[in-house]
Amino acid sequence: MNKKEEKSPVKKPLILVVNDDGINAKGLRMLGDIAQQFGQVVMIAPNNGRSGMSHAITFALPLRLRKISSSKDFEMYKTSGTPVDAVKLALNYLLKDQQVDLLVSGINHGANTSVSVIYSATVAAAIEGCLSGVPSVAFSMVNYNNNCDFKAAQSAIQKIIQTVLEKGLPPHICLNVNIPNVPENEIKGIKITRQAINEWHESIVAREYPADMPYFWMGGSLLEKDKAKDTDHWAVKHNYISIHPINIDWTDYSMIHELKKWKIK
Amino acid sequence: MNKKEEKSPVKKPLILVVNDDGINAKGLRMLGDIAQQFGQVVMIAPNNGRSGMSHAITFALPLRLRKISSSKDFEMYKTSGTPVDAVKLALNYLLKDQQVDLLVSGINHGANTSVSVIYSATVAAAIEGCLSGVPSVAFSMVNYNNNCDFKAAQSAIQKIIQTVLEKGLPPHICLNVNIPNVPENEIKGIKITRQAINEWHESIVAREYPADMPYFWMGGSLLEKDKAKDTDHWAVKHNYISIHPINIDWTDYSMIHELKKWKIK
Repeated sequence: MNKKEEKSPVKKPLILVVNDDGINAKGLRMLGDIAQQFGQVVMIAPNNGRSGMSHAITFALPLRLRKISSSKDFEMYKTSGTPVDAVKLALNYLLKDQQVDLLVSGINHGANTSVSVIYSATVAAAIEGCLSGVPSVAFSMVNYNNNCDFKAAQSAIQKIIQTVLEKGLPPHICLNVNIPNVPENEIKGIKITRQAINEWHESIVAREYPADMPYFWMGGSLLEKDKAKDTDHWAVKHNYISIHPINIDWTDYSMIHELKKWKIK
Repeated sequence: MNKKEEKSPVKKPLILVVNDDGINAKGLRMLGDIAQQFGQVVMIAPNNGRSGMSHAITFALPLRLRKISSSKDFEMYKTSGTPVDAVKLALNYLLKDQQVDLLVSGINHGANTSVSVIYSATVAAAIEGCLSGVPSVAFSMVNYNNNCDFKAAQSAIQKIIQTVLEKGLPPHICLNVNIPNVPENEIKGIKITRQAINEWHESIVAREYPADMPYFWMGGSLLEKDKAKDTDHWAVKHNYISIHPINIDWTDYSMIHELKKWKIK
Protein backbone atom coordinates (compact mmCIF):
# COMPACT_ATOMS: atom_id res chain seq x y z
CA MET A 1 0.00 0.00 0.00
CA ASN A 2 1.51 3.38 -0.92
CA LYS A 3 1.38 6.51 1.21
CA LYS A 4 -1.41 8.12 -0.77
CA GLU A 5 -3.70 5.14 -0.28
CA GLU A 6 -2.84 5.07 3.39
CA LYS A 7 -3.84 8.70 3.83
CA SER A 8 -7.16 8.52 2.00
CA PRO A 9 -8.50 5.01 2.31
CA VAL A 10 -11.72 4.56 0.37
CA LYS A 11 -14.33 3.34 2.84
CA LYS A 12 -16.05 0.25 1.54
CA PRO A 13 -19.82 0.65 1.32
CA LEU A 14 -21.66 -0.82 4.31
CA ILE A 15 -24.36 -3.17 3.02
CA LEU A 16 -27.13 -4.61 5.16
CA VAL A 17 -28.48 -7.96 3.91
CA VAL A 18 -31.86 -9.20 5.19
CA ASN A 19 -34.59 -11.60 4.12
CA ASP A 20 -37.92 -13.10 5.11
CA ASP A 21 -37.18 -16.79 4.41
CA GLY A 22 -35.02 -16.99 7.53
CA ILE A 23 -31.34 -17.23 8.41
CA ASN A 24 -30.88 -20.66 6.81
CA ALA A 25 -32.34 -19.80 3.41
CA LYS A 26 -30.10 -20.36 0.43
CA GLY A 27 -31.18 -17.10 -1.18
CA LEU A 28 -29.89 -15.10 1.81
CA ARG A 29 -26.42 -16.65 1.58
CA MET A 30 -26.34 -16.06 -2.16
CA LEU A 31 -27.27 -12.40 -1.73
CA GLY A 32 -24.66 -12.01 1.02
CA ASP A 33 -21.99 -13.44 -1.26
CA ILE A 34 -22.93 -11.09 -4.08
CA ALA A 35 -23.17 -8.04 -1.80
CA GLN A 36 -19.76 -8.80 -0.35
CA GLN A 37 -18.19 -8.16 -3.75
CA PHE A 38 -19.24 -4.51 -3.35
CA GLY A 39 -18.70 -3.75 0.31
CA GLN A 40 -18.72 -4.71 3.95
CA VAL A 41 -21.72 -6.91 4.67
CA VAL A 42 -23.77 -7.22 7.85
CA MET A 43 -26.46 -9.87 7.62
CA ILE A 44 -29.53 -10.20 9.82
CA ALA A 45 -32.52 -12.48 9.34
CA PRO A 46 -35.39 -14.06 11.25
CA ASN A 47 -34.75 -17.39 13.02
CA ASN A 48 -37.28 -19.04 10.72
CA GLY A 49 -39.22 -18.29 7.57
CA ARG A 50 -41.53 -15.29 7.99
CA SER A 51 -43.07 -15.03 4.52
CA GLY A 52 -46.33 -13.12 4.31
CA MET A 53 -45.48 -11.01 7.36
CA SER A 54 -45.65 -7.81 5.32
CA HIS A 55 -44.59 -4.80 7.41
CA ALA A 56 -45.46 -6.39 10.78
CA ILE A 57 -43.46 -5.21 13.79
CA THR A 58 -43.14 -6.51 17.35
CA PHE A 59 -43.55 -4.11 20.23
CA ALA A 60 -45.72 -5.96 22.72
CA LEU A 61 -43.16 -8.76 23.13
CA PRO A 62 -39.40 -8.60 23.61
CA LEU A 63 -37.11 -9.60 20.75
CA ARG A 64 -34.16 -11.95 20.75
CA LEU A 65 -31.05 -11.06 18.77
CA ARG A 66 -28.03 -13.33 18.56
CA LYS A 67 -24.75 -13.11 16.68
CA ILE A 68 -24.06 -16.41 15.02
CA SER A 69 -20.83 -17.96 13.94
CA SER A 70 -20.35 -18.40 10.26
CA SER A 71 -17.77 -19.52 7.76
CA LYS A 72 -18.37 -16.24 5.95
CA ASP A 73 -16.19 -13.29 6.74
CA PHE A 74 -19.07 -11.02 7.50
CA GLU A 75 -21.18 -10.56 10.62
CA MET A 76 -24.40 -12.58 10.81
CA TYR A 77 -27.25 -12.15 13.26
CA LYS A 78 -30.55 -13.89 13.77
CA THR A 79 -33.60 -12.56 15.55
CA SER A 80 -36.93 -13.81 16.85
CA GLY A 81 -38.52 -10.78 15.21
CA THR A 82 -40.09 -10.15 11.83
CA PRO A 83 -38.06 -9.05 8.79
CA VAL A 84 -38.98 -5.41 9.52
CA ASP A 85 -37.92 -5.89 13.16
CA ALA A 86 -34.61 -7.22 11.82
CA VAL A 87 -34.07 -4.04 9.78
CA LYS A 88 -34.92 -1.88 12.80
CA LEU A 89 -32.54 -3.83 15.05
CA ALA A 90 -29.78 -3.48 12.47
CA LEU A 91 -30.20 0.21 11.66
CA ASN A 92 -31.01 1.41 15.17
CA TYR A 93 -28.96 -0.89 17.37
CA LEU A 94 -26.25 -2.96 15.65
CA LEU A 95 -25.25 -0.21 13.20
CA LYS A 96 -26.69 2.72 15.13
CA ASP A 97 -23.91 5.21 14.52
CA GLN A 98 -22.82 4.01 11.11
CA GLN A 99 -23.99 5.08 7.68
CA VAL A 100 -25.56 2.14 5.90
CA ASP A 101 -25.03 2.66 2.17
CA LEU A 102 -27.36 -0.02 0.86
CA LEU A 103 -29.96 -2.48 2.08
CA VAL A 104 -30.65 -5.58 0.01
CA SER A 105 -33.46 -7.98 0.89
CA GLY A 106 -33.80 -11.56 -0.37
CA ILE A 107 -33.15 -13.38 -2.55
CA ASN A 108 -36.73 -14.39 -1.85
CA HIS A 109 -37.78 -17.89 -2.82
CA GLY A 110 -40.83 -17.02 -4.96
CA ALA A 111 -42.34 -14.09 -6.87
CA ASN A 112 -43.14 -10.77 -5.27
CA THR A 113 -45.04 -9.18 -8.12
CA SER A 114 -48.50 -7.64 -8.44
CA VAL A 115 -50.55 -7.56 -5.22
CA SER A 116 -48.10 -9.98 -3.57
CA VAL A 117 -45.98 -6.86 -3.03
CA ILE A 118 -48.46 -5.87 -0.32
CA TYR A 119 -48.10 -9.16 1.61
CA SER A 120 -44.36 -9.58 1.09
CA ALA A 121 -41.97 -9.17 4.00
CA THR A 122 -39.04 -9.21 1.55
CA VAL A 123 -40.44 -6.03 0.00
CA ALA A 124 -41.42 -4.65 3.43
CA ALA A 125 -37.80 -4.94 4.60
CA ALA A 126 -36.75 -2.76 1.64
CA ILE A 127 -39.56 -0.30 2.40
CA GLU A 128 -38.32 -0.16 6.01
CA GLY A 129 -34.80 0.66 4.81
CA CYS A 130 -36.26 3.36 2.59
CA LEU A 131 -38.24 4.80 5.52
CA SER A 132 -34.88 5.29 7.27
CA GLY A 133 -33.27 6.91 4.23
CA VAL A 134 -31.17 3.90 3.17
CA PRO A 135 -31.18 3.04 -0.58
CA SER A 136 -32.98 -0.30 -0.55
CA VAL A 137 -33.66 -3.08 -3.05
CA ALA A 138 -35.72 -6.27 -2.67
CA PHE A 139 -34.78 -9.29 -4.80
CA SER A 140 -37.06 -12.26 -5.50
CA MET A 141 -36.74 -15.20 -7.85
CA VAL A 142 -39.83 -16.94 -9.22
CA ASN A 143 -38.79 -20.32 -7.83
CA TYR A 144 -40.36 -21.74 -4.68
CA ASN A 145 -37.85 -24.54 -4.23
CA ASN A 146 -35.78 -24.31 -1.03
CA ASN A 147 -32.83 -25.61 -2.98
CA CYS A 148 -33.41 -23.25 -5.90
CA ASP A 149 -30.40 -22.46 -8.09
CA PHE A 150 -29.99 -18.69 -8.01
CA LYS A 151 -27.11 -18.67 -10.49
CA ALA A 152 -29.22 -17.14 -13.26
CA ALA A 153 -29.94 -14.18 -10.99
CA GLN A 154 -26.37 -13.45 -10.08
CA SER A 155 -25.17 -11.12 -12.82
CA ALA A 156 -28.37 -9.06 -12.84
CA ILE A 157 -28.16 -8.60 -9.07
CA GLN A 158 -24.52 -7.55 -9.38
CA LYS A 159 -25.40 -4.93 -11.99
CA ILE A 160 -28.33 -3.58 -9.98
CA ILE A 161 -26.32 -3.35 -6.75
CA GLN A 162 -23.47 -1.62 -8.56
CA THR A 163 -25.78 0.87 -10.24
CA VAL A 164 -27.68 1.70 -7.04
CA LEU A 165 -24.39 2.17 -5.15
CA GLU A 166 -23.23 4.54 -7.89
CA LYS A 167 -26.44 6.49 -8.47
CA GLY A 168 -28.28 6.15 -5.16
CA LEU A 169 -32.06 6.28 -5.05
CA PRO A 170 -34.31 9.32 -4.57
CA PRO A 171 -35.86 9.78 -1.12
CA HIS A 172 -39.01 7.69 -0.45
CA ILE A 173 -38.36 5.27 -3.32
CA CYS A 174 -37.08 1.70 -3.14
CA LEU A 175 -36.82 -0.98 -5.81
CA ASN A 176 -38.55 -4.34 -6.06
CA VAL A 177 -36.70 -6.72 -8.38
CA ASN A 178 -38.15 -10.01 -9.62
CA ILE A 179 -36.16 -12.55 -11.58
CA PRO A 180 -37.78 -15.22 -13.78
CA ASN A 181 -37.05 -18.89 -13.16
CA VAL A 182 -35.11 -19.69 -16.30
CA PRO A 183 -31.42 -20.27 -17.12
CA GLU A 184 -29.47 -17.04 -17.54
CA ASN A 185 -29.23 -17.33 -21.33
CA GLU A 186 -33.04 -17.38 -21.54
CA ILE A 187 -33.45 -14.12 -19.63
CA LYS A 188 -34.49 -11.59 -22.26
CA GLY A 189 -33.38 -8.46 -20.41
CA ILE A 190 -34.58 -5.99 -17.81
CA LYS A 191 -37.96 -4.23 -17.84
CA ILE A 192 -38.81 -1.23 -15.66
CA THR A 193 -42.37 -1.99 -14.59
CA ARG A 194 -45.43 -0.93 -12.67
CA GLN A 195 -47.24 -3.13 -10.15
CA ALA A 196 -49.88 -5.33 -11.84
CA ILE A 197 -53.26 -4.99 -10.16
CA ASN A 198 -54.37 -8.60 -10.09
CA GLU A 199 -56.65 -10.21 -7.56
CA TRP A 200 -55.86 -12.94 -5.10
CA HIS A 201 -58.41 -15.71 -5.38
CA GLU A 202 -58.68 -17.30 -1.95
CA SER A 203 -59.46 -20.91 -1.23
CA ILE A 204 -60.13 -21.45 2.44
CA VAL A 205 -60.20 -25.08 3.54
CA ALA A 206 -62.06 -25.98 6.73
CA ARG A 207 -61.06 -29.11 8.67
CA GLU A 208 -62.25 -30.64 11.94
CA TYR A 209 -60.11 -31.55 14.92
CA PRO A 210 -61.05 -35.01 16.21
CA ALA A 211 -63.08 -33.56 19.10
CA ASP A 212 -63.14 -29.88 18.65
CA MET A 213 -64.26 -26.96 16.54
CA PRO A 214 -63.05 -26.50 12.97
CA TYR A 215 -59.79 -24.96 11.90
CA PHE A 216 -58.99 -23.27 8.61
CA TRP A 217 -56.16 -23.27 6.10
CA MET A 218 -55.67 -20.20 3.95
CA GLY A 219 -54.61 -20.65 0.35
CA GLY A 220 -55.23 -19.28 -3.08
CA SER A 221 -53.92 -18.27 -6.44
CA LEU A 222 -53.53 -15.07 -8.41
CA LEU A 223 -56.30 -14.13 -10.86
CA GLU A 224 -54.58 -12.47 -13.80
CA LYS A 225 -56.92 -9.53 -14.33
CA ASP A 226 -54.33 -6.95 -15.37
CA LYS A 227 -53.03 -8.22 -18.70
CA ALA A 228 -51.06 -5.13 -19.78
CA LYS A 229 -47.46 -5.52 -20.90
CA ASP A 230 -45.91 -2.85 -18.69
CA THR A 231 -46.33 -4.74 -15.42
CA ASP A 232 -44.01 -6.67 -13.11
CA HIS A 233 -46.20 -9.75 -13.52
CA TRP A 234 -46.04 -9.65 -17.34
CA ALA A 235 -42.27 -9.11 -17.32
CA VAL A 236 -41.30 -12.17 -15.27
CA LYS A 237 -43.91 -14.31 -17.02
CA HIS A 238 -42.18 -13.44 -20.29
CA ASN A 239 -38.67 -14.09 -18.96
CA TYR A 240 -37.67 -10.51 -18.27
CA ILE A 241 -36.21 -9.28 -15.00
CA SER A 242 -38.63 -6.76 -13.51
CA ILE A 243 -37.50 -3.64 -11.65
CA HIS A 244 -40.50 -1.98 -10.01
CA PRO A 245 -40.02 1.36 -8.20
CA ILE A 246 -42.12 1.65 -5.02
CA ASN A 247 -42.96 4.91 -3.24
CA ILE A 248 -43.64 4.87 0.51
CA ASP A 249 -46.28 7.57 -0.02
CA TRP A 250 -49.43 5.57 -0.84
CA THR A 251 -51.61 8.63 -1.38
CA ASP A 252 -53.80 8.66 -4.47
CA TYR A 253 -53.41 12.30 -5.49
CA SER A 254 -56.16 12.35 -8.12
CA MET A 255 -58.59 11.09 -5.49
CA ILE A 256 -57.74 14.07 -3.28
CA HIS A 257 -59.38 16.33 -5.89
CA GLU A 258 -62.36 14.02 -6.20
CA LEU A 259 -62.91 13.80 -2.45
CA LYS A 260 -62.78 17.59 -2.10
CA LYS A 261 -65.83 17.72 -4.39
CA TRP A 262 -67.75 15.41 -2.05
CA LYS A 263 -68.10 18.27 0.46
CA ILE A 264 -68.61 16.12 3.56
CA LYS A 265 -69.28 18.66 6.32
CA MET B 1 -95.88 -2.79 5.11
CA ASN B 2 -97.79 -2.14 1.89
CA LYS B 3 -97.79 -4.38 -1.18
CA LYS B 4 -95.32 -2.31 -3.11
CA GLU B 5 -92.71 -2.56 -0.38
CA GLU B 6 -93.31 -6.29 -0.10
CA LYS B 7 -92.67 -6.83 -3.79
CA SER B 8 -89.50 -4.79 -4.03
CA PRO B 9 -87.80 -4.82 -0.67
CA VAL B 10 -84.74 -2.64 -0.57
CA LYS B 11 -81.85 -4.87 0.46
CA LYS B 12 -79.98 -3.37 3.38
CA PRO B 13 -76.29 -2.84 2.64
CA LEU B 14 -74.08 -5.61 4.01
CA ILE B 15 -71.32 -4.03 6.10
CA LEU B 16 -68.25 -5.89 7.35
CA VAL B 17 -66.75 -4.45 10.54
CA VAL B 18 -63.18 -5.39 11.50
CA ASN B 19 -60.36 -4.01 13.64
CA ASP B 20 -56.85 -4.70 14.89
CA ASP B 21 -57.33 -3.94 18.58
CA GLY B 22 -59.21 -7.21 19.04
CA ILE B 23 -62.75 -8.39 19.62
CA ASN B 24 -63.07 -6.74 23.03
CA ALA B 25 -61.97 -3.26 21.97
CA LYS B 26 -64.40 -0.46 22.67
CA GLY B 27 -63.74 1.14 19.27
CA LEU B 28 -64.94 -2.01 17.47
CA ARG B 29 -68.27 -2.03 19.30
CA MET B 30 -68.71 1.67 18.64
CA LEU B 31 -68.06 1.22 14.91
CA GLY B 32 -70.45 -1.76 14.81
CA ASP B 33 -73.18 0.33 16.43
CA ILE B 34 -72.69 3.16 13.94
CA ALA B 35 -72.51 0.82 10.93
CA GLN B 36 -75.71 -0.89 12.03
CA GLN B 37 -77.61 2.35 11.45
CA PHE B 38 -76.84 1.91 7.74
CA GLY B 39 -77.11 -1.81 7.08
CA GLN B 40 -76.73 -5.40 8.15
CA VAL B 41 -73.49 -5.79 10.10
CA VAL B 42 -71.16 -8.77 10.29
CA MET B 43 -68.28 -8.25 12.71
CA ILE B 44 -65.02 -10.15 12.82
CA ALA B 45 -61.91 -9.37 14.81
CA PRO B 46 -58.77 -10.99 16.18
CA ASN B 47 -58.98 -12.70 19.59
CA ASN B 48 -56.52 -10.16 20.95
CA GLY B 49 -54.93 -6.87 19.98
CA ARG B 50 -52.84 -7.17 16.82
CA SER B 51 -51.63 -3.61 16.36
CA GLY B 52 -48.57 -3.19 14.15
CA MET B 53 -49.31 -6.37 12.19
CA SER B 54 -49.59 -4.41 8.93
CA HIS B 55 -50.73 -6.68 6.09
CA ALA B 56 -49.45 -9.92 7.67
CA ILE B 57 -51.27 -13.11 6.74
CA THR B 58 -51.19 -16.64 8.15
CA PHE B 59 -50.73 -19.54 5.79
CA ALA B 60 -48.21 -21.81 7.52
CA LEU B 61 -50.48 -22.33 10.53
CA PRO B 62 -54.19 -23.13 10.71
CA LEU B 63 -56.62 -20.45 11.83
CA ARG B 64 -59.36 -20.61 14.41
CA LEU B 65 -62.68 -18.93 13.76
CA ARG B 66 -65.51 -18.89 16.26
CA LYS B 67 -68.94 -17.31 16.28
CA ILE B 68 -69.49 -15.61 19.60
CA SER B 69 -72.67 -14.76 21.40
CA SER B 70 -73.43 -11.12 21.78
CA SER B 71 -76.13 -8.83 23.05
CA LYS B 72 -75.96 -7.06 19.69
CA ASP B 73 -78.30 -8.09 16.94
CA PHE B 74 -75.53 -8.70 14.46
CA GLU B 75 -73.22 -11.65 13.90
CA MET B 76 -69.85 -11.52 15.64
CA TYR B 77 -66.84 -13.74 15.03
CA LYS B 78 -63.36 -13.90 16.50
CA THR B 79 -60.29 -15.46 14.96
CA SER B 80 -56.77 -16.44 15.94
CA GLY B 81 -55.58 -14.76 12.73
CA THR B 82 -54.36 -11.29 11.90
CA PRO B 83 -56.73 -8.47 10.92
CA VAL B 84 -56.07 -9.22 7.22
CA ASP B 85 -56.77 -12.93 7.87
CA ALA B 86 -60.04 -11.82 9.46
CA VAL B 87 -61.03 -9.93 6.30
CA LYS B 88 -60.10 -12.93 4.13
CA LEU B 89 -62.11 -15.32 6.34
CA ALA B 90 -65.10 -12.99 6.17
CA LEU B 91 -65.07 -12.26 2.43
CA ASN B 92 -64.06 -15.73 1.26
CA TYR B 93 -65.71 -18.02 3.79
CA LEU B 94 -68.39 -16.47 6.02
CA LEU B 95 -69.82 -14.20 3.31
CA LYS B 96 -68.45 -16.08 0.32
CA ASP B 97 -71.49 -15.80 -1.94
CA GLN B 98 -72.73 -12.45 -0.73
CA GLN B 99 -71.96 -8.98 -1.97
CA VAL B 100 -70.32 -6.97 0.77
CA ASP B 101 -71.20 -3.32 0.22
CA LEU B 102 -68.78 -1.73 2.65
CA LEU B 103 -65.89 -2.66 4.92
CA VAL B 104 -65.12 -0.45 7.90
CA SER B 105 -62.07 -1.01 10.05
CA GLY B 106 -61.53 0.38 13.55
CA ILE B 107 -62.21 2.55 15.38
CA ASN B 108 -58.51 2.18 16.10
CA HIS B 109 -57.27 3.34 19.48
CA GLY B 110 -54.50 5.67 18.29
CA ALA B 111 -53.40 7.65 15.22
CA ASN B 112 -52.74 6.01 11.86
CA THR B 113 -51.24 8.95 10.05
CA SER B 114 -47.96 9.51 8.21
CA VAL B 115 -45.66 6.47 8.03
CA SER B 116 -47.76 4.71 10.69
CA VAL B 117 -50.08 3.90 7.78
CA ILE B 118 -47.45 1.38 6.64
CA TYR B 119 -47.37 -0.48 10.00
CA SER B 120 -51.09 -0.27 10.72
CA ALA B 121 -53.25 -3.38 10.58
CA THR B 122 -56.35 -1.18 10.82
CA VAL B 123 -55.37 0.39 7.50
CA ALA B 124 -54.22 -2.99 6.12
CA ALA B 125 -57.69 -4.44 6.75
CA ALA B 126 -59.17 -1.64 4.61
CA ILE B 127 -56.52 -2.25 1.92
CA GLU B 128 -57.45 -5.94 1.97
CA GLY B 129 -61.11 -5.09 1.43
CA CYS B 130 -60.08 -2.81 -1.44
CA LEU B 131 -57.98 -5.64 -2.98
CA SER B 132 -61.22 -7.65 -3.12
CA GLY B 133 -63.20 -4.81 -4.67
CA VAL B 134 -65.12 -3.83 -1.52
CA PRO B 135 -65.37 -0.08 -0.76
CA SER B 136 -63.30 0.15 2.43
CA VAL B 137 -62.61 2.77 5.07
CA ALA B 138 -60.26 2.67 8.08
CA PHE B 139 -61.12 4.81 11.11
CA SER B 140 -58.68 5.77 13.86
CA MET B 141 -58.94 8.17 16.77
CA VAL B 142 -55.86 9.87 18.19
CA ASN B 143 -56.47 8.48 21.68
CA TYR B 144 -54.54 5.51 23.02
CA ASN B 145 -56.76 4.95 26.05
CA ASN B 146 -58.56 1.58 26.06
CA ASN B 147 -61.54 3.31 27.57
CA CYS B 148 -61.40 6.20 25.10
CA ASP B 149 -64.63 8.10 24.53
CA PHE B 150 -65.37 7.87 20.81
CA LYS B 151 -68.43 10.12 20.99
CA ALA B 152 -66.71 13.00 19.20
CA ALA B 153 -66.04 10.72 16.26
CA GLN B 154 -69.59 9.48 15.86
CA SER B 155 -71.20 12.04 13.59
CA ALA B 156 -68.18 12.25 11.25
CA ILE B 157 -68.12 8.47 10.91
CA GLN B 158 -71.84 8.46 10.18
CA LYS B 159 -71.41 11.04 7.43
CA ILE B 160 -68.46 9.25 5.87
CA ILE B 161 -70.20 5.85 5.89
CA GLN B 162 -73.33 7.36 4.38
CA THR B 163 -71.37 9.15 1.66
CA VAL B 164 -69.29 6.10 0.73
CA LEU B 165 -72.42 3.92 0.60
CA GLU B 166 -74.01 6.49 -1.73
CA LYS B 167 -71.04 7.27 -3.97
CA GLY B 168 -68.91 4.14 -3.70
CA LEU B 169 -65.15 4.34 -4.15
CA PRO B 170 -63.13 3.96 -7.37
CA PRO B 171 -61.32 0.64 -7.87
CA HIS B 172 -57.97 0.30 -6.04
CA ILE B 173 -58.66 3.18 -3.66
CA CYS B 174 -59.60 3.01 0.01
CA LEU B 175 -59.87 5.73 2.64
CA ASN B 176 -57.90 6.22 5.83
CA VAL B 177 -59.74 8.44 8.31
CA ASN B 178 -58.12 9.89 11.44
CA ILE B 179 -60.07 11.76 14.09
CA PRO B 180 -58.42 14.17 16.56
CA ASN B 181 -58.79 13.60 20.28
CA VAL B 182 -60.93 16.61 21.18
CA PRO B 183 -64.60 17.12 22.06
CA GLU B 184 -66.84 17.29 19.00
CA ASN B 185 -67.38 21.04 19.23
CA GLU B 186 -63.61 21.58 18.96
CA ILE B 187 -63.31 19.61 15.71
CA LYS B 188 -62.71 22.25 13.02
CA GLY B 189 -63.93 20.21 10.07
CA ILE B 190 -62.71 17.65 7.55
CA LYS B 191 -59.49 17.90 5.51
CA ILE B 192 -58.71 15.73 2.50
CA THR B 193 -55.03 14.97 2.97
CA ARG B 194 -51.91 13.27 1.69
CA GLN B 195 -49.73 10.98 3.80
CA ALA B 196 -47.08 12.93 5.72
CA ILE B 197 -43.60 11.53 5.13
CA ASN B 198 -42.19 11.66 8.61
CA GLU B 199 -39.57 9.37 10.08
CA TRP B 200 -39.94 6.95 12.93
CA HIS B 201 -37.19 7.53 15.48
CA GLU B 202 -36.52 4.19 17.12
CA SER B 203 -35.38 3.65 20.65
CA ILE B 204 -34.35 0.07 21.23
CA VAL B 205 -33.88 -0.91 24.86
CA ALA B 206 -31.67 -3.91 25.67
CA ARG B 207 -32.25 -5.83 28.92
CA GLU B 208 -30.68 -8.94 30.41
CA TYR B 209 -32.47 -12.05 31.59
CA PRO B 210 -31.15 -13.13 35.02
CA ALA B 211 -28.99 -15.87 33.48
CA ASP B 212 -29.29 -15.55 29.76
CA MET B 213 -28.58 -13.44 26.71
CA PRO B 214 -30.15 -10.01 26.28
CA TYR B 215 -33.60 -9.26 24.99
CA PHE B 216 -34.81 -6.11 23.29
CA TRP B 217 -37.83 -3.85 23.47
CA MET B 218 -38.73 -1.84 20.40
CA GLY B 219 -40.07 1.67 20.85
CA GLY B 220 -39.85 5.08 19.36
CA SER B 221 -41.52 8.29 18.37
CA LEU B 222 -42.34 10.12 15.17
CA LEU B 223 -39.88 12.77 13.94
CA GLU B 224 -41.97 15.50 12.37
CA LYS B 225 -39.94 16.12 9.20
CA ASP B 226 -42.82 16.88 6.84
CA LYS B 227 -44.28 20.12 8.14
CA ALA B 228 -46.58 20.94 5.22
CA LYS B 229 -50.21 21.77 5.90
CA ASP B 230 -51.80 19.37 3.42
CA THR B 231 -50.94 16.19 5.35
CA ASP B 232 -52.89 13.76 7.52
CA HIS B 233 -50.49 14.44 10.40
CA TRP B 234 -50.99 18.22 10.21
CA ALA B 235 -54.78 17.87 10.00
CA VAL B 236 -55.30 15.85 13.18
CA LYS B 237 -52.68 17.87 15.05
CA HIS B 238 -54.76 20.96 14.25
CA ASN B 239 -58.08 19.39 15.25
CA TYR B 240 -59.30 18.51 11.77
CA ILE B 241 -60.58 15.08 10.76
CA SER B 242 -58.24 13.71 8.06
CA ILE B 243 -59.48 11.68 5.10
CA HIS B 244 -56.50 10.24 3.23
CA PRO B 245 -57.10 8.29 -0.03
CA ILE B 246 -54.76 5.29 -0.41
CA ASN B 247 -54.06 3.49 -3.68
CA ILE B 248 -53.06 -0.19 -3.61
CA ASP B 249 -50.70 0.47 -6.55
CA TRP B 250 -47.48 1.60 -4.85
CA THR B 251 -45.62 2.24 -8.10
CA ASP B 252 -43.70 5.50 -8.38
CA TYR B 253 -44.49 6.38 -12.00
CA SER B 254 -41.99 9.21 -12.33
CA MET B 255 -39.23 6.85 -11.24
CA ILE B 256 -40.14 4.48 -14.09
CA HIS B 257 -38.92 7.16 -16.53
CA GLU B 258 -35.78 7.79 -14.50
CA LEU B 259 -34.91 4.08 -14.25
CA LYS B 260 -35.33 3.62 -17.99
CA LYS B 261 -32.52 6.15 -18.45
CA TRP B 262 -30.20 4.04 -16.27
CA LYS B 263 -29.85 1.52 -19.09
CA ILE B 264 -28.93 -1.48 -16.91
CA LYS B 265 -28.24 -4.24 -19.44
